[in-house]
Amino acid sequence: MTDPSYEIQPIGHVESPLVDRSSAPMQGYEGSPEAWLVFDGRVRDGIRDLAADTDVIVLTWLDRASRDVLTTRPRDDPRNPERGVFSTRSPDRPNPVGLHRVRIVAVDGLRIRVRNLEALDGTPIVDVKPVLDRWADS
Amino acid sequence: MTDPSYEIQPIGHVESPLVDRSSAPMQGYEGSPEAWLVFDGRVRDGIRDLAADTDVIVLTWLDRASRDVLTTRPRDDPRNPERGVFSTRSPDRPNPVGLHRVRIVAVDGLRIRVRNLEALDGTPIVDVKPVLDRWADS
Repeated sequence: MTDPSYEIQPIGHVESPLVDRSSAPMQGYEGSPEAWLVFDGRVRDGIRDLAADTDVIVLTWLDRASRDVLTTRPRDDPRNPERGVFSTRSPDRPNPVGLHRVRIVAVDGLRIRVRNLEALDGTPIVDVKPVLDRWADS
Repeated sequence: MTDPSYEIQPIGHVESPLVDRSSAPMQGYEGSPEAWLVFDGRVRDGIRDLAADTDVIVLTWLDRASRDVLTTRPRDDPRNPERGVFSTRSPDRPNPVGLHRVRIVAVDGLRIRVRNLEALDGTPIVDVKPVLDRWADS
């Protein structure tokens, strides 16, 4: 490794009833409970235009993932053939950034309530981005 | 900041004719030239199932971005009202992770040629993920 590395400074964290991987759904739309995005006060201006009843993309740092995994069996199912990890959504990967499309259901100051987030309680938030029209799926 | 920070170790970098922000399109589908994803040998097993004629999501670290920006005018247009940065796709944001949906056009060992990538030459690659059906836009 001669490349430089880069430092992620979380902008907040997830509050969720999901506390361990064994009970978490594989994807957010597979029955995740509602959760809160809890933002740091220092990014207050950055979140000011996030509004209820819209979809956004949340990036997280999957801090309980293994970073030395390069191949895996999708959905942890031993019947599935092993795949290169960059062809899967496994949380275990060299840079475990989670990518979640969620629906905002309520905004309360620095706390934003969302649906369809499969991240575990305490997961650091990296970024929030709007959905582009080109990505729309509904 | 009492939170821990996390370290991104790039898995490769972009080779592109785009060398500065002024000449880069705002979004990948707005006329980006073809580019190469050049992966480190140590993630060879992770990319082994990436194949031509498929779309993937590439995450990058926008290493020329400003990280202290919380509000911006979308598309750098002064006629647009200022918006919280998490409601924009501006590269200037606290954790400048780029999110790009690209089409793989060719695979040559550790080099993967893609269409619709607006990242600048030399941009570090963070992750590659498959597109989920739910995200399909075509």
